[in-house]
Amino acid sequence: MINQDTIVALATPSGAGAIAIIRLSGKDAIDFAESQFKSVSGKQLSKQATHTIHLGHIIDGNRTIDEVLVSVFKNPNSYTGEHVVEISCHGSNYIQQEIIQLFLRQGCRMATAGEFTLRAFLNGKLDLSQAEAVADLISSDNEASHQIAMQQMRGGFSTEIAKLREELLNFASLIELELDFAEEDVEFADRTQFKDLIERITFVLKRLIDSFAVGNVIKNGIPVAIVGEPNVGKSTLLNALLNEERAIVSEIAGTTRDTIEDEISIGGIGFRFIDTAGIRDTKDVVESIGIKKTFEKIEQAQVVVYLFESDVISNASEKSQSIKIEIEKIKNKYPQKPLIVIANKIDKLSENTVAVLNKELSVISNASEKIHSLLLSAKQGVGVEELKAHLSSFVNTGALRNNDTIVTNSRHYDSLLKAFEEIDKVKFGLDSGLSGDLLAIDIRQALYHFGEITGEITNDDLLGNIFSNFCIGK
Amino acid sequence: MINQDTIVALATPSGAGAIAIIRLSGKDAIDFAESQFKSVSGKQLSKQATHTIHLGHIIDGNRTIDEVLVSVFKNPNSYTGEHVVEISCHGSNYIQQEIIQLFLRQGCRMATAGEFTLRAFLNGKLDLSQAEAVADLISSDNEASHQIAMQQMRGGFSTEIAKLREELLNFASLIELELDFAEEDVEFADRTQFKDLIERITFVLKRLIDSFAVGNVIKNGIPVAIVGEPNVGKSTLLNALLNEERAIVSEIAGTTRDTIEDEISIGGIGFRFIDTAGIRDTKDVVESIGIKKTFEKIEQAQVVVYLFESDVISNASEKSQSIKIEIEKIKNKYPQKPLIVIANKIDKLSENTVAVLNKELSVISNASEKIHSLLLSAKQGVGVEELKAHLSSFVNTGALRNNDTIVTNSRHYDSLLKAFEEIDKVKFGLDSGLSGDLLAIDIRQALYHFGEITGEITNDDLLGNIFSNFCIGK
Repeated sequence: MINQDTIVALATPSGAGAIAIIRLSGKDAIDFAESQFKSVSGKQLSKQATHTIHLGHIIDGNRTIDEVLVSVFKNPNSYTGEHVVEISCHGSNYIQQEIIQLFLRQGCRMATAGEFTLRAFLNGKLDLSQAEAVADLISSDNEASHQIAMQQMRGGFSTEIAKLREELLNFASLIELELDFAEEDVEFADRTQFKDLIERITFVLKRLIDSFAVGNVIKNGIPVAIVGEPNVGKSTLLNALLNEERAIVSEIAGTTRDTIEDEISIGGIGFRFIDTAGIRDTKDVVESIGIKKTFEKIEQAQVVVYLFESDVISNASEKSQSIKIEIEKIKNKYPQKPLIVIANKIDKLSENTVAVLNKELSVISNASEKIHSLLLSAKQGVGVEELKAHLSSFVNTGALRNNDTIVTNSRHYDSLLKAFEEIDKVKFGLDSGLSGDLLAIDIRQALYHFGEITGEITNDDLLGNIFSNFCIGK
Repeated sequence: MINQDTIVALATPSGAGAIAIIRLSGKDAIDFAESQFKSVSGKQLSKQATHTIHLGHIIDGNRTIDEVLVSVFKNPNSYTGEHVVEISCHGSNYIQQEIIQLFLRQGCRMATAGEFTLRAFLNGKLDLSQAEAVADLISSDNEASHQIAMQQMRGGFSTEIAKLREELLNFASLIELELDFAEEDVEFADRTQFKDLIERITFVLKRLIDSFAVGNVIKNGIPVAIVGEPNVGKSTLLNALLNEERAIVSEIAGTTRDTIEDEISIGGIGFRFIDTAGIRDTKDVVESIGIKKTFEKIEQAQVVVYLFESDVISNASEKSQSIKIEIEKIKNKYPQKPLIVIANKIDKLSENTVAVLNKELSVISNASEKIHSLLLSAKQGVGVEELKAHLSSFVNTGALRNNDTIVTNSRHYDSLLKAFEEIDKVKFGLDSGLSGDLLAIDIRQALYHFGEITGEITNDDLLGNIFSNFCIGK
């Protein structure tokens, strides 16, 4: 149930800036604001129209705390559906604190994480999947995740689920109606049409469930493992990609023992780079731990980048052989994982040697569709753009381009899987001529899981879990 | 001259939060916003009343960037005096950047530091000292500096200066009028009244100039050097002082500052604590550098806190002597500097020993008015409140309590000093019967310096200096 308290919180990021917004919501929000606000025009806040802005001062007795702009939103035309007041004050920490404390002393309560959005949900301004999209939208840091969150917030996902749910609900009602006329042995629900619907639902559910693989990648970024011997330029490559000195570049071989993660956006998709130690056999205990970690990282990665120093191939050394063996090792261990083999430091090579190298690389990359190869100079930035193009080519953004609904939320994924199981039972029941009362139970179960997604079915624990991940002030 | 560009900037602190505000100002601000905004109600922004808020979407072609609230402020009823639009969007870094970049592509220009306030000044919405107070207000982090900035922003300082300036201007006009009737030897400006005015101006200027000592302390905090041997509990004392403040701040969840600042507010005044090494003579080179630094820190400090472990006095050791010598040294080197001698860790002592210690400390503190002494347990928080009271007693906050104008800005201080010099010349001229034309020159000079403060007299360099210290978006 919605709490009747008036809640208050800072809605803008903490820290000093030009302005900060303090937000109040609740039955008495406008009254609270009015009691501490002296309008320049002398007008009373409570008598003002919704969606209007008023210049004045926040006062505490005789003391003026700040000159502010107050925005008034009247129930139900506000974010939360309640009376909402937004106070735009000067962005000093001190002023923010003073104003919030003033309202707390007057009897407002500090908002909990996500409480404004929770109230919006409870007041029917948003459904649950839309509310979840608000948090996704705020944390989105690239085009793809932003687009999906935006679509979900605008109801794209809910609409798709609601449509299926309604059709299914219709059939459920008809079948339950049959039960009332059990003696007469009638069939209100056309079994052929019903089978047809179940097929369509199965199809959509499967697409949504499958989309989670893409959605998850878009939401969390694509993990890319950069593998190679010490000192082949892994950190330099990372820096060239990141364009910033984030990884510690060291001339001393083998210094990158710990993995360093960083994310960049290529073509609107986030890629998380995992820099790892080399994979060669070694007697050094510390380094062999690093190697174990390397395989673990490859395991977690969706794309592997194998980096080596280009001059070792050209002089046909022992090293050249060991590199080929390593590549072979990765290929055999992870045949389905895209692998980009990169010859680094080509700035050091003659034209002839580059030609030889190119040939060698072609042999490697021709062996499998999953293997690409590339000549590169991380130091001089040569080939970095090509590398980005190769990386992008591994991402199936078809669904994104088609504006299909993509599932990014593991809670939704879970409910969809459960709904799918129930629908499968319904299908089996239909095929095997199961009685209406038993069919109805499975259909109701499926409906329940649909309802979990949009929030028709909910409970306090679930809401607590969802909204505790929000920031305060949202 | 005011630039006709429409400027855009993020007005809230950077980083992710619930919401962020992007601000546009300029002749075409509303048109720019309208071209990228699709109102939910279908209304046109340009046809809306000032101080109204509109729900809709920021769009870039077919792409929806965010659901936003747009606030419209129409010339001249806005912060800058121009058309202003504030876009309240979801607070992700990605969305903030996308919206700003969208408007830059459309032809808006990124605002420079303080440019919104500069425009407010150029459009006559604020005078220069008020504009400067905006920056002070944002950086104020305690009650006193906030109060002074607030008073200045509301025109307190300008009013005081303007009053003097007007009276002086009157006399200047009368004296200049006399010059037109030079042959007739008339005196339009009553010399007795004029002397009276000059006395009053001198009095006010002197008060304002003197207030800078307090103002500077309030603006920058009072530096306190904590001196003592290693391990006597300096950090524990600092934490005991800071704890209370941090507790208040952390009550408001989500606004807790990460960094522990060494500044605390006592009775509304900021105290900056400087932790230093011991000051004893030593042969150790590294430590002697520390000691040199200690004396440098004491030099910069306005108050010195000398901390020692209480049990060393009670057992009348060699150490006890060396402490007394140290205190003597500080006292002799800085006889005018308030010194608080603190016996820490009294929780470890018996009642008898405390009595002995008290006697010893009385001897020390009775030697001079500038020396206070205190028994304290930083660990248990005993005596911390007394320490705060002692610190506060060194600050003359009389002016603050009386709501007098206090000068905190060194630019104003400089102009006031110059005006004072000129007024002194006028006074001398009056006393020595200087001719009207020469008097008029000095008066005009004094008026010039008054005008510098409020901005009647200004130039691009000066404005550049002032506004470059602002944050972008203000």
